[in-house]
Amino acid sequence: MTSDTICAIATAIGGAVSIIRLSGPAAIAVAERVWHGRAALPALPARQLTLGSLRRPDGGVIDPQCLAVVMPGPHSYTGEDVVELHCHGGALCTRLALEELLRQGARHADPGEFTRRAFVNGRLDLTQAEAVADIISAGSESALRLAGRQLEGVLGRRINHSYESLTDILAEIESRLDFPEEELDWQSTSSLLAALQAAQDDLRALAASRHDGEILRGGISLVIAGPPNVGKSSLLNVILGRDRAIVAEIPGTTRDTIEVPSTIRGIPIHLVDTAGIRAGGDSIERAGMARAENNALSADLILWVYDASQPYAPQRWPEWPVAGKLIVVANKCDKVPAAEQGGRAGAPADAVRVSALFGTGLPALYDAIERAVWQQPQGPADNALAVAARHGAHLERAVAALDDARQAIGSDLWELAAPALRSAIFDLGKILGRSVDPDVLDTIFARFCIGK
Amino acid sequence: MTSDTICAIATAIGGAVSIIRLSGPAAIAVAERVWHGRAALPALPARQLTLGSLRRPDGGVIDPQCLAVVMPGPHSYTGEDVVELHCHGGALCTRLALEELLRQGARHADPGEFTRRAFVNGRLDLTQAEAVADIISAGSESALRLAGRQLEGVLGRRINHSYESLTDILAEIESRLDFPEEELDWQSTSSLLAALQAAQDDLRALAASRHDGEILRGGISLVIAGPPNVGKSSLLNVILGRDRAIVAEIPGTTRDTIEVPSTIRGIPIHLVDTAGIRAGGDSIERAGMARAENNALSADLILWVYDASQPYAPQRWPEWPVAGKLIVVANKCDKVPAAEQGGRAGAPADAVRVSALFGTGLPALYDAIERAVWQQPQGPADNALAVAARHGAHLERAVAALDDARQAIGSDLWELAAPALRSAIFDLGKILGRSVDPDVLDTIFARFCIGK
Repeated sequence: MTSDTICAIATAIGGAVSIIRLSGPAAIAVAERVWHGRAALPALPARQLTLGSLRRPDGGVIDPQCLAVVMPGPHSYTGEDVVELHCHGGALCTRLALEELLRQGARHADPGEFTRRAFVNGRLDLTQAEAVADIISAGSESALRLAGRQLEGVLGRRINHSYESLTDILAEIESRLDFPEEELDWQSTSSLLAALQAAQDDLRALAASRHDGEILRGGISLVIAGPPNVGKSSLLNVILGRDRAIVAEIPGTTRDTIEVPSTIRGIPIHLVDTAGIRAGGDSIERAGMARAENNALSADLILWVYDASQPYAPQRWPEWPVAGKLIVVANKCDKVPAAEQGGRAGAPADAVRVSALFGTGLPALYDAIERAVWQQPQGPADNALAVAARHGAHLERAVAALDDARQAIGSDLWELAAPALRSAIFDLGKILGRSVDPDVLDTIFARFCIGK
Repeated sequence: MTSDTICAIATAIGGAVSIIRLSGPAAIAVAERVWHGRAALPALPARQLTLGSLRRPDGGVIDPQCLAVVMPGPHSYTGEDVVELHCHGGALCTRLALEELLRQGARHADPGEFTRRAFVNGRLDLTQAEAVADIISAGSESALRLAGRQLEGVLGRRINHSYESLTDILAEIESRLDFPEEELDWQSTSSLLAALQAAQDDLRALAASRHDGEILRGGISLVIAGPPNVGKSSLLNVILGRDRAIVAEIPGTTRDTIEVPSTIRGIPIHLVDTAGIRAGGDSIERAGMARAENNALSADLILWVYDASQPYAPQRWPEWPVAGKLIVVANKCDKVPAAEQGGRAGAPADAVRVSALFGTGLPALYDAIERAVWQQPQGPADNALAVAARHGAHLERAVAALDDARQAIGSDLWELAAPALRSAIFDLGKILGRSVDPDVLDTIFARFCIGK
């Protein structure tokens, strides 16, 4: 199907070992010009790691110790002949080896091109191919589990089940249309409608998981805002402390905010700390506050933090138009006398009471965040599927088309039911990759890393 | 020899594939608790990549698609049982897999511990083990070639040749000492001296390569200094343009200098750009200049750049005490009328004339840098060995001890010749790792990355 041989470094630069991967009809021939071992590359037993060296055609050594493995098609990742070279890590050694392979006739692979070939050659359906990128970019264990199930084909099989069931129904309807005069052994209308309804119910449930799926895959942005000196940064640090291992700072989009990825209760979170907000201030301060407000407006969720030991009025929530995305947090509750723990005058009664200093009140805060994020109070079940935005859009269209099909069948308008069913089947096929545009594939595989 | 099982991620975090490596008596048993394939791990054919999945003991999936390969000792990298798991790249998936293996009884490996075990188990001599780290950190193709030859054992065999030759001579001398009365079939004194001389000559030549070896391994620091606005940064950019592919910025040690690794004619160079230097200036400027001077004093080589289209006196080299490390560079020669190309009044006659703007004069500049760096005008030959500082120190001690041994033999003082020879043999043994302290091994392997 594909005629050229692609090549890329499959590991990140900088470790002890680098893997260079080739796939295509000339993979073995190209690698053979660079790798030299006790046996010739084409003579190696399939999938067996063998020691050799990487050399230039003039005999110059690139790496005196390099393992090679041949995975012949069609039983390889891509379905084509695949060769992997495991050479010493180190930027220079790896780069020289790659350059020599390109010189010997391989083409540098595009991002995701190995997986794209696996899809084109029928080794994976499109949902499985997408799951490969999801696994690599997973930001939480729940996201990783979800991607794992999808790579195992659970989503693909479930959608395929509806796809085949609808295809059977369509065949029945087309038969009625083709032979209207003959009383063949048709299913009853009610049994057709029941089968249609079952498929539609399942597709509707999957479509409804899109919200959770997008959160698990992409995470949510959580802005911490509030007046100056109420402990916003302390709260940020306390939240980060729970997941320090996978924390790394990302430069913010504006000079005065920082964005840090983390997870809260398995939800990938992009935490954004903002400048303090207060009434009045000069023009420079007002500019900073406008920026904080813009951040808040584009966030998925806002924690408005105030100092519970101070009067609420000067710290009040500025009523930005962000319906349903707000959690008010009363910080420094450790400083509030017991008699006043009910809350300061005018403070929202549902404010979550915490002390960033002592780390108290965080479970209640995380409960509030979970309630705000998930559609179900407990979040998606461990073995649930949650579809991505692309799947969700096709599922919603298929569900709508099935409404049309059911109405048409109910009214005995078989010639209207057929195209509606065809449209639903077409959309399910797009999810599985059976009827997908090259442009859509380009978009899907563009988010992959090189070498996968 | 070693009794525990070590485990580490051998690839850098962030690629399409991650390799987790285990070595030790329980490598297969530990991996078997996490990896599950069509066949059990101990039943897999040696060195054959096999598809399976990574699961927790409770069945939870870490990675639904993970290749495993068993390389049984003693014919493995470390000489022990080795298992590699090739899982999906991505920080989270890789970390969870590693954590599960550690939970199942493996210990996290120290830097270089796999290679240290290879050395301890006799799979590599110490010079070969050192070459592994050299390959990974190589900053130029010549350094990579050098490390490759060393890993192939060229240096080890050459030193071992002298080691055995000296051991034979020592045996002869000890025999003379043990049986002084008997006229055994001894070699003539002159033939002993000739053999000693041959070994010493070879060791001396190797010791002399230490200077080149240190440069190839560690590179040199090259400071670009001079008055403001003479084109120092343009010169830096022009030099970097030749090797853009392996350039990355490294934060400088002081706020106002930047350090960039590059190569010039195969020499790894740490280029340091400094603040402009001029006479006078206020206290802040003088502080910056003092910093530039300190940078220059600790550098291996200084390019003092001045503007050839302006009078030299105000731009003159400030006579810092850096004998033999200076190259004066006359920049902006494109602006100098042909009649004045001989050089401005007072300018050094040996200044290298360049135009950073047009990139002219660079070959002459690189010639001057090569002359200043290498001991031989042409640098080390392509197939030459160049030893590292550690080897050089032992070689120099061995050469000195052989001087003592030759003098003693020449004076028929055999009882003095024996300990001198023993001392030389001991030092060669330290290079090869035959008689090496654990502390020295700690130092050597500390510079390795984790997973190698």
